Amino acid sequence: MSNDETMTSVLEKTKIGDIINICLKDNTTIMGRLMPRYEYEKGDHIVIKLQNGYNVGLKIEKIKSINTLVSDLAKDQSRNNMNNSKSTNIDHSSLDKLKSDLPQILLLSTGGTIASKIDYRTGGVTPVLSAQDLYNSVPELSEYAKIDTEILINEYSENIGPKEWNLIVSKIVQKINLGIYNGIIVSHGTDTMSYTASALSFALQNIPIPVILVGAQRSSDRPSSDSSSNLISAVICATQLKYSGVFVVMHASMSDDLIACHIGTRVRKNHTSKRNAFQSIDTYPLATVDKNRIIMDDKTISNVNLNERSFESGKNKLHEIIPSKFDERVFLLKYYPGFNPKLIEYVTNNGYKIIVIEGTGLGHLNKNCLFYLKNAITSGVLVFMTSQCIWGRTSLTVYDTGRDLIKIGVIPLSNMLSETAVVKAMWLLGNENNRNSILKKMQENISNEIIPISHILS
Amino acid sequence: MSNDETMTSVLEKTKIGDIINICLKDNTTIMGRLMPRYEYEKGDHIVIKLQNGYNVGLKIEKIKSINTLVSDLAKDQSRNNMNNSKSTNIDHSSLDKLKSDLPQILLLSTGGTIASKIDYRTGGVTPVLSAQDLYNSVPELSEYAKIDTEILINEYSENIGPKEWNLIVSKIVQKINLGIYNGIIVSHGTDTMSYTASALSFALQNIPIPVILVGAQRSSDRPSSDSSSNLISAVICATQLKYSGVFVVMHASMSDDLIACHIGTRVRKNHTSKRNAFQSIDTYPLATVDKNRIIMDDKTISNVNLNERSFESGKNKLHEIIPSKFDERVFLLKYYPGFNPKLIEYVTNNGYKIIVIEGTGLGHLNKNCLFYLKNAITSGVLVFMTSQCIWGRTSLTVYDTGRDLIKIGVIPLSNMLSETAVVKAMWLLGNENNRNSILKKMQENISNEIIPISHILS
Repeated sequence: MSNDETMTSVLEKTKIGDIINICLKDNTTIMGRLMPRYEYEKGDHIVIKLQNGYNVGLKIEKIKSINTLVSDLAKDQSRNNMNNSKSTNIDHSSLDKLKSDLPQILLLSTGGTIASKIDYRTGGVTPVLSAQDLYNSVPELSEYAKIDTEILINEYSENIGPKEWNLIVSKIVQKINLGIYNGIIVSHGTDTMSYTASALSFALQNIPIPVILVGAQRSSDRPSSDSSSNLISAVICATQLKYSGVFVVMHASMSDDLIACHIGTRVRKNHTSKRNAFQSIDTYPLATVDKNRIIMDDKTISNVNLNERSFESGKNKLHEIIPSKFDERVFLLKYYPGFNPKLIEYVTNNGYKIIVIEGTGLGHLNKNCLFYLKNAITSGVLVFMTSQCIWGRTSLTVYDTGRDLIKIGVIPLSNMLSETAVVKAMWLLGNENNRNSILKKMQENISNEIIPISHILS
Repeated sequence: MSNDETMTSVLEKTKIGDIINICLKDNTTIMGRLMPRYEYEKGDHIVIKLQNGYNVGLKIEKIKSINTLVSDLAKDQSRNNMNNSKSTNIDHSSLDKLKSDLPQILLLSTGGTIASKIDYRTGGVTPVLSAQDLYNSVPELSEYAKIDTEILINEYSENIGPKEWNLIVSKIVQKINLGIYNGIIVSHGTDTMSYTASALSFALQNIPIPVILVGAQRSSDRPSSDSSSNLISAVICATQLKYSGVFVVMHASMSDDLIACHIGTRVRKNHTSKRNAFQSIDTYPLATVDKNRIIMDDKTISNVNLNERSFESGKNKLHEIIPSKFDERVFLLKYYPGFNPKLIEYVTNNGYKIIVIEGTGLGHLNKNCLFYLKNAITSGVLVFMTSQCIWGRTSLTVYDTGRDLIKIGVIPLSNMLSETAVVKAMWLLGNENNRNSILKKMQENISNEIIPISHILS
């Protein structure tokens, strides 16, 4: 019987979740928690979550011996609490370090990779871990905060839209009004996280505490998962950030240590799979979390409007925050050569109230669209211009095309991201009662969606 | 009378286009050609084109004296040649350095900022300079090539689409078949340059010479214009690049010297106004031109398919290149939260043959779209998936949503850019005579639109 076969039989006795000590053939020893393997990866390795929250993959052929230090029992119990939609306090018995003077935060789960694990039935990754599970699997969190958890939605983020934003906003308003939380974390799938961050940025102005969206590009059962480090940084930002407002906390670079805290309206998912997929556009992130320490970016602070955190325990009830509604009658039109402008007629005749164009360059499209856009505007549809370039700002005064667009009433939105513009339009449409007020507010900077300096092409 | 007033009267006698010698108050001297000022800029400075082709702005208050060295007469004459659609040889009398053994290239003008100047009538920038003008204003070009020029189209690039691609392709095929050109340069507005680059990349496979698209982010009458340096680098690439194929040559960085040569299907305009707006996606540029020297990128070369240049004077007639047609019945659908899936029904019922989706993340959209996409596919519409993340590749096997999309027949396109995918779909629709062949070829790598390594998030 080969050594590999022996190792396989040892592994069969070791349970997922056990804390094990591994001795490699070169006599290095590694301690960590045995994790489930990602289903599309080869069966020649095991995955261990280290104490720093990072996962590593180890080839079975390199392992000399494995000792189980702690068998995973507590975890099995917590799994039974899944889909518990009531707010549950943390399991204090398993968290000896927890101090009573730690700040209190709420972790609101909406689904996504940070809350996903392998679904052996379908053979893919599905969002099923509860916020409580997350907390239990990252014990370091107990050093920073007392955490309440609640599952609000259990959806991949591609299924989260205006209706779910309404739900999240209402829940956050309700929780802020309890007056007990120093910060609220919303775990969220990464696909539409920046859209939701924009929605919360507009709907939750002047809140006294930070609301942090966090996710993971790789699920927590994979080597190189970023879920633990992102979550720890989210808790640090929720409790220690000097400012209130809505932020996105995600990996900043390929290194394990650097996590970025982005302003909710200025962030974009710019890579399908990398851990550092999220980038601030036309500005730097507000802060980075480096080895669990927040480092503020002074340039960004001077370029944006921020409110200081104003939480006082029991005193920050916010009767003035009225949950916003989002109205979906907004159309995002990405222009491309060969685009048939008759589509604008369809949009105009089918109940849409606002068109956000993603034009080329400074905000242009083919002159054959002018006739249809003019008709749309005459019919009462509001038309705004952003750029598919992503970085930089629109300007309709430089070229003939732009001036023609201005003449018929197309409104440029400076360096507002097209995605942010769509969300802002839905928010204004849901909460303002007349066209002029929407027109005016679309062009005003409300939550850093339009910023003075736009100098970064990263 | 103040010194500034004196200077203003001196400036009034100096004509735009004159070569002047300026002595500053700190006794620095600067020689160059007086350029028209950009109309939206303040009147407190003048703009000088230096001999290296770069423009600088000088504050009038800093100028001690100005001497006119050469008055601009030749230029006025050449201006009269505007809108000349016949191929014209260069003005040899003004180009003493021209050697008879220099390689011969064609500069085909389609309009855009590189060929624009101030239109005092409308108060904006309009594309009016002929390719001949460009050549006359950048005499350095004579060191590298004998250049023929032709105005093919005179349009802002937002007005260039499938019909114009057909025209450009036909013209290039005709010119290649003359067997006299070592390279062809297409000057083009930057707004849709990457779309046209994709179109030419698919339509002009296996050409023996490089076809270089070039433009400028700032028109040649502005300080910090990039038109001269981009054009010089385009000529260097057209004559010296080891490879044939379709490339985009534009500024690579904020410095003046570094110009990038991008692969036609892998480039994107990522900033509305910066000179270094163009970026290669998921790869590095094929080459950079640094101080007029081409430096190839070995990593990129190993990651893409390239043909070596195979031009032999008089011998490269290409009877096998048949001008391609582009068919516009392709719809680019950028998904966003709140998207109303009924639009898919409209697209299906209105003659579109292909839908290219820009999904979220790995290639997802809301589950409420599945029903409509299934109907579209059943009706014979082909549906492909790209990602709005821009960087990285789609994958529909990781999550439930993706697998559901695959089940109904949605085809992921790996790391093909959505813009490139739309152009490729229009090209296949115009040239393939059956659905299965389009389906197959969309997924095959034809012109580096799908590349093995995608490791850059810049």
